[in-house]
Amino acid sequence: MIYLLVGLGSIALDTTRTPFRTVTEVLGGSGSYFSLSSSLFTDTGLIGIVGGDFPMRFMKIFNEKINTEGLEVEKGKTFRFDSSFGFDLGIRTTNKTDLNVFGGWSPKVPDNYKDAEFLYLGNVGPEQQLEVLDQMNKTPKLTIADTIELWINTQRESLIEVISRIDGMVLNDEEIRQLCETSNIYKGAQKMIDWGVEFVIVKKGEHGATLYTKDQIFPTSSYPLREVMDPTGAGDSFAGGFMGHISRKGKRDEKTFREAIIYGNVMGSFCVEDFSVDRLLSITIEDIENRYKDYKKIVSF
Amino acid sequence: MIYLLVGLGSIALDTTRTPFRTVTEVLGGSGSYFSLSSSLFTDTGLIGIVGGDFPMRFMKIFNEKINTEGLEVEKGKTFRFDSSFGFDLGIRTTNKTDLNVFGGWSPKVPDNYKDAEFLYLGNVGPEQQLEVLDQMNKTPKLTIADTIELWINTQRESLIEVISRIDGMVLNDEEIRQLCETSNIYKGAQKMIDWGVEFVIVKKGEHGATLYTKDQIFPTSSYPLREVMDPTGAGDSFAGGFMGHISRKGKRDEKTFREAIIYGNVMGSFCVEDFSVDRLLSITIEDIENRYKDYKKIVSF
Repeated sequence: MIYLLVGLGSIALDTTRTPFRTVTEVLGGSGSYFSLSSSLFTDTGLIGIVGGDFPMRFMKIFNEKINTEGLEVEKGKTFRFDSSFGFDLGIRTTNKTDLNVFGGWSPKVPDNYKDAEFLYLGNVGPEQQLEVLDQMNKTPKLTIADTIELWINTQRESLIEVISRIDGMVLNDEEIRQLCETSNIYKGAQKMIDWGVEFVIVKKGEHGATLYTKDQIFPTSSYPLREVMDPTGAGDSFAGGFMGHISRKGKRDEKTFREAIIYGNVMGSFCVEDFSVDRLLSITIEDIENRYKDYKKIVSF
Repeated sequence: MIYLLVGLGSIALDTTRTPFRTVTEVLGGSGSYFSLSSSLFTDTGLIGIVGGDFPMRFMKIFNEKINTEGLEVEKGKTFRFDSSFGFDLGIRTTNKTDLNVFGGWSPKVPDNYKDAEFLYLGNVGPEQQLEVLDQMNKTPKLTIADTIELWINTQRESLIEVISRIDGMVLNDEEIRQLCETSNIYKGAQKMIDWGVEFVIVKKGEHGATLYTKDQIFPTSSYPLREVMDPTGAGDSFAGGFMGHISRKGKRDEKTFREAIIYGNVMGSFCVEDFSVDRLLSITIEDIENRYKDYKKIVSF
């Protein structure tokens, strides 16, 4: 079977400390959040790597929810990530990063993924993102990528090359300011459009997300929650909702992009309602559609 | 003539320093921004105080745009406020505050304002806000108030008394966290509703504003601007649009509140397009209606 939607990303065992609760070595990583989110919309293939110590209970989740042909199991330890949040849950502090098998990994794209029409290059290094692009049989209909501050600082040129070869870039406001060397987000987005993307999505956490194209700005609020448990993975769950909706519609017009941003917000809001990927595992597509309808009602005037 | 919409607030000579331009002793203060914004919707009376040195060119603006019966001219100097913004224009640093005649001022409500149906208690001390409430002939149909960190720290009890006597409170996310002693904005808003208001509006600057009632949350994005010149006064211009629209409709139902929040966003967006109140002086109600329609189109999906 050929997979139309494929995601690339890290698979991690996360230790997450909030003032309310700490969880140890739970399932995390950009690839996990993305694929478990998008899989609620459409079949998803995941390109990732884990070590031999990766717990079977997590592999069972992947086997049930997504296609795992692209999931390498390497001798050694799985990527570990340890971070803390303060009371407002807005700022994360990294305590410890052990890349383990994820360090220096060369992603391999299975044959069944090489004709994918929709591709998400989650947060791995830009050189690894380029390796995946190079292995595709043809340019997908829509490719978007995410990045982090580390790659902006250490692999800026490769990152700009990624941007020149894809359709959309997803990043937060600090990252866009840093990458584009401007305090003005709008101007930063235009610079990235000059570098080659068709659109830029700026993620603003609890404040929502904004879509920038050459001529338009589509600002959105996040779905309002009474309480947030763990902000980890919100951005990748957003990307999963965004790509999942576009894939199932098979369209890439402006209307679909706008709807997809809202589905992204919806998936981000589910994600943060519990630790790890737990909430993504307990919802159905009906819950998603209901929250989408609710969102529409909430923001109407 | 009886004025249906009345605002209370500071009138200041602002010195504002941004990385792009510095302006010296321009017209500022919460009362100025509020009243010049709301006056585009409906006749507005302003309760404020200036010193004998207040420039006639500014008095001329007030005389043309608003009712000045409530504007006291006291021997001495006008309130001065000197502040700076960094490159992202998100954070203000106060350089100097000279309260002058504004310090220890006891606001007096003119007879023509005492039957106002819509009242804005802008950022003056809560004790002065209470003095104004005490002078009204009857409880207005709708009263909202703003505050700042200084009053939360120094006059918390009086501020909570204000909240118990009005209908809506307008403040930013930091202020609500501090006043309500919680990191959770939703819980903070519910606490203020328990103290006596019907609704809370949380201003989030470039990220928009959210309306909280007992049962509902209405999140909105700010009107997207390509460039911001000077964020000073955005919150009071927002309040001017909010109260201006409610006053001209004469209604206080949920639909009107929602529309009013959007008019608030629209007025905030105009305000920051130039220094001081300059942009508020160059627009008409048609410009406002056009931007309202444009906003509606921009956020639709």
